[in-house]
Amino acid sequence: MLHWDAAAMMPAGGAAARAEQLAALRVITHQHLTAPEIGDLVAQAESESDALDEWQRANLREMRRRQVHAAALPCELVEAESRACSECEAMWRNARAQNEFSAVLSLLERLLRLEREIAATKAEHLGSSPYEALLDQYEPGGSVAIIDRLFDELARFLPDLLEAVLTRQAALPSPAAPSGPFPIELQRQVGMHLMERIGFNFGHGRLDVSAHPFCGGTPDDVRITTRYDESDFARALMGVLHETGHALYQRGLPAEWRLQPVGRARGMAVHESQSLLLEMQVCRSRAFLTFAAPILREAFAGDGLGWEPDTLYRRQIRVQRGPIRVDADEVTYPAHVILRYRLERAMIAGDLAPADLPGAWAEGLRDLLGIAPPNDREGCLQDIHWYDGVWGYFPTYTLGALIAAQLFEAVREAIPDVLEAIARGEFAPLLGWLREHVHSKGSLLSTAELVESTTGRPLGTASFKRHLHDRYLA
Amino acid sequence: MLHWDAAAMMPAGGAAARAEQLAALRVITHQHLTAPEIGDLVAQAESESDALDEWQRANLREMRRRQVHAAALPCELVEAESRACSECEAMWRNARAQNEFSAVLSLLERLLRLEREIAATKAEHLGSSPYEALLDQYEPGGSVAIIDRLFDELARFLPDLLEAVLTRQAALPSPAAPSGPFPIELQRQVGMHLMERIGFNFGHGRLDVSAHPFCGGTPDDVRITTRYDESDFARALMGVLHETGHALYQRGLPAEWRLQPVGRARGMAVHESQSLLLEMQVCRSRAFLTFAAPILREAFAGDGLGWEPDTLYRRQIRVQRGPIRVDADEVTYPAHVILRYRLERAMIAGDLAPADLPGAWAEGLRDLLGIAPPNDREGCLQDIHWYDGVWGYFPTYTLGALIAAQLFEAVREAIPDVLEAIARGEFAPLLGWLREHVHSKGSLLSTAELVESTTGRPLGTASFKRHLHDRYLA
Repeated sequence: MLHWDAAAMMPAGGAAARAEQLAALRVITHQHLTAPEIGDLVAQAESESDALDEWQRANLREMRRRQVHAAALPCELVEAESRACSECEAMWRNARAQNEFSAVLSLLERLLRLEREIAATKAEHLGSSPYEALLDQYEPGGSVAIIDRLFDELARFLPDLLEAVLTRQAALPSPAAPSGPFPIELQRQVGMHLMERIGFNFGHGRLDVSAHPFCGGTPDDVRITTRYDESDFARALMGVLHETGHALYQRGLPAEWRLQPVGRARGMAVHESQSLLLEMQVCRSRAFLTFAAPILREAFAGDGLGWEPDTLYRRQIRVQRGPIRVDADEVTYPAHVILRYRLERAMIAGDLAPADLPGAWAEGLRDLLGIAPPNDREGCLQDIHWYDGVWGYFPTYTLGALIAAQLFEAVREAIPDVLEAIARGEFAPLLGWLREHVHSKGSLLSTAELVESTTGRPLGTASFKRHLHDRYLA
Repeated sequence: MLHWDAAAMMPAGGAAARAEQLAALRVITHQHLTAPEIGDLVAQAESESDALDEWQRANLREMRRRQVHAAALPCELVEAESRACSECEAMWRNARAQNEFSAVLSLLERLLRLEREIAATKAEHLGSSPYEALLDQYEPGGSVAIIDRLFDELARFLPDLLEAVLTRQAALPSPAAPSGPFPIELQRQVGMHLMERIGFNFGHGRLDVSAHPFCGGTPDDVRITTRYDESDFARALMGVLHETGHALYQRGLPAEWRLQPVGRARGMAVHESQSLLLEMQVCRSRAFLTFAAPILREAFAGDGLGWEPDTLYRRQIRVQRGPIRVDADEVTYPAHVILRYRLERAMIAGDLAPADLPGAWAEGLRDLLGIAPPNDREGCLQDIHWYDGVWGYFPTYTLGALIAAQLFEAVREAIPDVLEAIARGEFAPLLGWLREHVHSKGSLLSTAELVESTTGRPLGTASFKRHLHDRYLA
């Protein structure tokens, strides 16, 4: 709640006090998690785990995981990283604004040294590789062998597919733009209306504004944010629908395990799968835009061809090569993620020095996407993650896209007319399926187990590939 | 912040989770305050207090006061009271809605038993009377001997003064009403504009909406709220200015003692003095309304006699006998407070049973104000305080009014042209004086010492009496 408030409500002058408030709560949480009796109690429970049912066993496993992560690091390392992150992140804001990578280089080097130390220490306690120890913070049980295989497959088939999509797109006339203006208050209202239709309960959540959209809060009080552009309603709206996917997951977590580790979201890959399933699979579909077009046209008192479902749909599935990850469409997005994944793995392994990052970035972007970054601001300075100590997070975006595609195929198998229902504005069948098969599972299963048990096969790239083919080439 | 959020932002469905969050933080705070080593450390510091300067000594005194309050009560009593409050408060909402005092009587009786137990236990540890032990939670060092004397003086002179004011008011034509409508967004904007002119820094605070206006947050991030009425801008505006007085106090607390007990507000009497000084002494003055009238007229595109400074002023100082405390003007308000003070003292002393409260209320209101409550809803059920375990709080409202009047006399002695400056929209001299003499003192002095050191004499009723005479009879 304090994080949400800081992003959505807090006046600038409250930042220093808020940082202290958050630090105080973090210290207290850490003290509780690392108290020696907690380790002893968990060990005792583990020795008697035969008496537990499957939820209790999973809960114990998650307790142990959190306790190991917390206890692995000496206090001095936690503090040193926290300070290094604050300083590097602050400098990164300047460096990015100035397009001056060298300004942040030494702080990035220091932060990377600490991250490598953290990775090595946690790896020892977790019995994993150093990169996997970082990944495990966001994607518990994530495996580089699996990610390598999936990402290599993507890297092989996406370039040709992208070429074909762009060729086909170029042969078609450009879809007409819907007529503006799009006042922010109307954007907010229509966003809330569509959220409600899909199943978001405003008795248990809010929609607000922040510089970077996110989903926060708690399962009983889900707070999502967006940012508005008066000249383009679709961007904020698709952002709202993306965060609504996160929000529905959070809201659907098992109520009987609230406040217990097993009652939490499974990890960032599954979380992202829920936002991408809603945004990409559902809300950028022809079916959804058939339902939404008259609502949008009425909300903005729109007129003309730009408000036809087919036109809106074609605008939502435009594809374009570009250097910026957050502006990327679903066809080019994986290239951005694979680039970052490979680079951060190399840096954590000690095979790539931060000083060589701009060159490696340019080379990787050319290989994966066939373009060059115009500068470092739109290259290796564009994302906050590394400069804020978030290493091992990037792969979850594309793992989420793969899971979303595979899950939505399973939805359509289970509910053959789900898209027809969506075109009529009926989301209950879809939401019911997600609640039953994904949301209510919390952290009972690993990500791999969850995907396999709900879709009948291990996570792969086939569904995603079929989805792209059907949407962009069929 | 979580309290502010609950009142200003939280969706209804978040209430249960929020209650748990607040309870968890309360328990952790209580554990820290009552840890045996804290008592030992405070005792050790007390034994070496010769080495401390006056701020450090005051800080130690405040630490001890908070530690004594926390440690005085056994955990079971804290928990029992907490539960009894929740249940009684919930039942009170129904009882008030139904105008049915008997519905909440047994829960009020149970809660009073617990409050008397708390009062007796804390009195033993504080070396005070039981009622003073409760009062001390809101007004540290508050003395019933002094309150009795002040309130008796008020109870003696107010009835005749009120008669004279009403007679004089009745002889004058009723001031014209300013022409509406008063859209909420415009009310909000003009409220923020006046807040800024007075000295509220929106870089360190916010103005929002809640059912019951309050001032919350922290000194670096002050959050005030109001509620709007489209048919009457003045009520929300005066509420905003009242809360701005609280906010300026909070913001002006000594930055070098942030997070230390001595850096906190002195108590609720001084806090209320700051809101009442701004609202009653300053913003309902002819000088302020001379400044504000053209701003208000322009904001609402108003026209006519109702927007003249003198008309606005006369509407802001109308006096009327009524049964409701929160609707009362500054002439009749003390009667409402004295009534509650006498009744709660009698209940804590065991001299008045809750079953006899409606009768005692009617009798007291007749004696003090010459009217009868039309029913219990507008009588002893109107305020949440007792039903939510807030006993010993009421006198701080009127102590605050007395302090405000005495402080503002001191301001006018120190800055003879302060009202002329205010009429020109210059608030810096006033705010500078308050910052230096009140806000920056934090809890360095007791309320009595603060009043005496800033005004040159002990707290009395003379300034308040002069203020009422000058404003309403001169």
